[in-house]
Amino acid sequence: MSLVTELLAGNRRALARIISQVEDDGPEAHALLAELHPHTGRSHVIGVTGAPGTGKSTLVNALAKTYRSQGQTVGIIAVDPTSPFSGGALLGDRVRMRDLAGDPGVFIRSMATRGSLGGLARATADVILVLDAAGFDRILVETVGVGQAEVEIASAAHTTIVVEAPGLGDEVQAIKAGVLEIADLFAVNKADREGADRAVLALQMMQGLAPAPAGHHGTGRQAGHAAPGAQADGAWLPPITKTIAVRGEGVAALHDWVEQHAAYLRETGQLARREATRAATALNHILRERLIAALFAGLTNGELDRAISAIARRELDPYTAADHLLQAEKPGFPGIVRRP
Amino acid sequence: MSLVTELLAGNRRALARIISQVEDDGPEAHALLAELHPHTGRSHVIGVTGAPGTGKSTLVNALAKTYRSQGQTVGIIAVDPTSPFSGGALLGDRVRMRDLAGDPGVFIRSMATRGSLGGLARATADVILVLDAAGFDRILVETVGVGQAEVEIASAAHTTIVVEAPGLGDEVQAIKAGVLEIADLFAVNKADREGADRAVLALQMMQGLAPAPAGHHGTGRQAGHAAPGAQADGAWLPPITKTIAVRGEGVAALHDWVEQHAAYLRETGQLARREATRAATALNHILRERLIAALFAGLTNGELDRAISAIARRELDPYTAADHLLQAEKPGFPGIVRRP
Repeated sequence: MSLVTELLAGNRRALARIISQVEDDGPEAHALLAELHPHTGRSHVIGVTGAPGTGKSTLVNALAKTYRSQGQTVGIIAVDPTSPFSGGALLGDRVRMRDLAGDPGVFIRSMATRGSLGGLARATADVILVLDAAGFDRILVETVGVGQAEVEIASAAHTTIVVEAPGLGDEVQAIKAGVLEIADLFAVNKADREGADRAVLALQMMQGLAPAPAGHHGTGRQAGHAAPGAQADGAWLPPITKTIAVRGEGVAALHDWVEQHAAYLRETGQLARREATRAATALNHILRERLIAALFAGLTNGELDRAISAIARRELDPYTAADHLLQAEKPGFPGIVRRP
Repeated sequence: MSLVTELLAGNRRALARIISQVEDDGPEAHALLAELHPHTGRSHVIGVTGAPGTGKSTLVNALAKTYRSQGQTVGIIAVDPTSPFSGGALLGDRVRMRDLAGDPGVFIRSMATRGSLGGLARATADVILVLDAAGFDRILVETVGVGQAEVEIASAAHTTIVVEAPGLGDEVQAIKAGVLEIADLFAVNKADREGADRAVLALQMMQGLAPAPAGHHGTGRQAGHAAPGAQADGAWLPPITKTIAVRGEGVAALHDWVEQHAAYLRETGQLARREATRAATALNHILRERLIAALFAGLTNGELDRAISAIARRELDPYTAADHLLQAEKPGFPGIVRRP
């Protein structure tokens, strides 16, 4: 029986082996992904992003438990840009294990940096594909919501939850403003802390739902007293949910909003649009990696090193160096970009 | 007089215009950068990175003031991945302006996300190049040290300062571990807070300079009682400096360590190696952007959209779709990658 057949039959060891292949971009990876792809499209992918200290991981665990209590299977991908250096990702897994260990309806994977920029996004998209084919009903993708790559990864989900917490200081508040536009749902976690209501009010203000104080510029949206969720005009106004993830409070309400958002996407045809965006992003990352790999494979020994030395010595600027490398005529190697 | 001549003569308006061109990747950008490149290589580039809430911006300002008090000019680049959505970057500038406003020896620029992954890194490298040509003695590049892109940007500097602060919680501690390997210097900022000595000890522990508690795995480095800075064997042991940036305390010591590290790089020949790394990174980003632009320019109308739709409908997997697009024979268009 092939690895893919075993995975489709629910074999967890086959799943883990395929994920390892795919993460490492191994020789079989692309063939495996191509074979799995027709079996995907059933999972609902939920991105969870927020600044450090907001309690994202605890919230993801609590959400996973809620889904499990309703009989749905859950895949969890924790994207940790720091883990190549340290045991960060493993630590996260260990904390999770305490809660969800031994449940065959849950699969947890931590993703570390893939070396190059964009590599992490490519690898995360591939692992989502594998978990989707393996039949997980919901896939939770957790990222630190302060990096460009990490925000992109989370926003490639069907439903994006932005997690806030009171009292994280001004700099974190600025980040909050930055992820406003990618949020389908807001969770103000650690809501038993002082300042939770102020955090909710700040979000409502940005949505144009609360009057802004003098001197504050709102987003220009005139939502008035609209209720959150699906609007009469077909738009979606992101609900704001207060949660205390460590005690499980508010998590059921957050879960219900995720499901409402999933229904909204299906009913309005927005789901197809999000699928197209996800496909475009995945294709884009693959094309970029292939192009640079083809270019490097076609350069002769030392050609790149000479260009780099010349730039470092200021004999050649990087743009002219790039022109040279891209124009190079290499007989016998067809995989290079040539200019007229 | 050309824009470049004006910039080299110290014209600040020419500088601002060139930076805008370069940031937007405008039509003149590459020619301008090529013309400026021979005039670069004199600035010392200092990356400052840390989690939200560590007080990086205040520390960068304090460092800039120290350099100014010694008669050196300073360029500041604040990389803010969230600012496309919000006024985050502008806010940061305004806070800075209070301290450094009207000083012609200081130039401050906030960088927002450049759309694509890697675009921010490319644009930041280009602006560093422009400030270098404009003759700034020191260039401070500030990034949020929790994203893959942002960490890469900071670590492309000559000297990388990782900023910590006590009491930011466990998740932030994990990030600390993640940036350990890119740090040339550590600043434990907000050192008047409880836990500052514990933060210093934790860093020393990771360096192998303090005994680890039972069950903790160190980095394996057996530094014993080595003093920080340049070692007898030519290595560099990152010093740990306590700072209270809002009051300027410890900033002179941090400044001195930056200058010691700069001298270390020059004297050991490591500077040439770092220049080569910076050149390689810059070249890599430019090549990636050029390749994908050439590919997209060569696709016929709708070709990409059809591929994306086919992926979204699960008729085609993204890897096979990428193969098709890269193999496409387009008569008359030479800029496409062809396979044998």
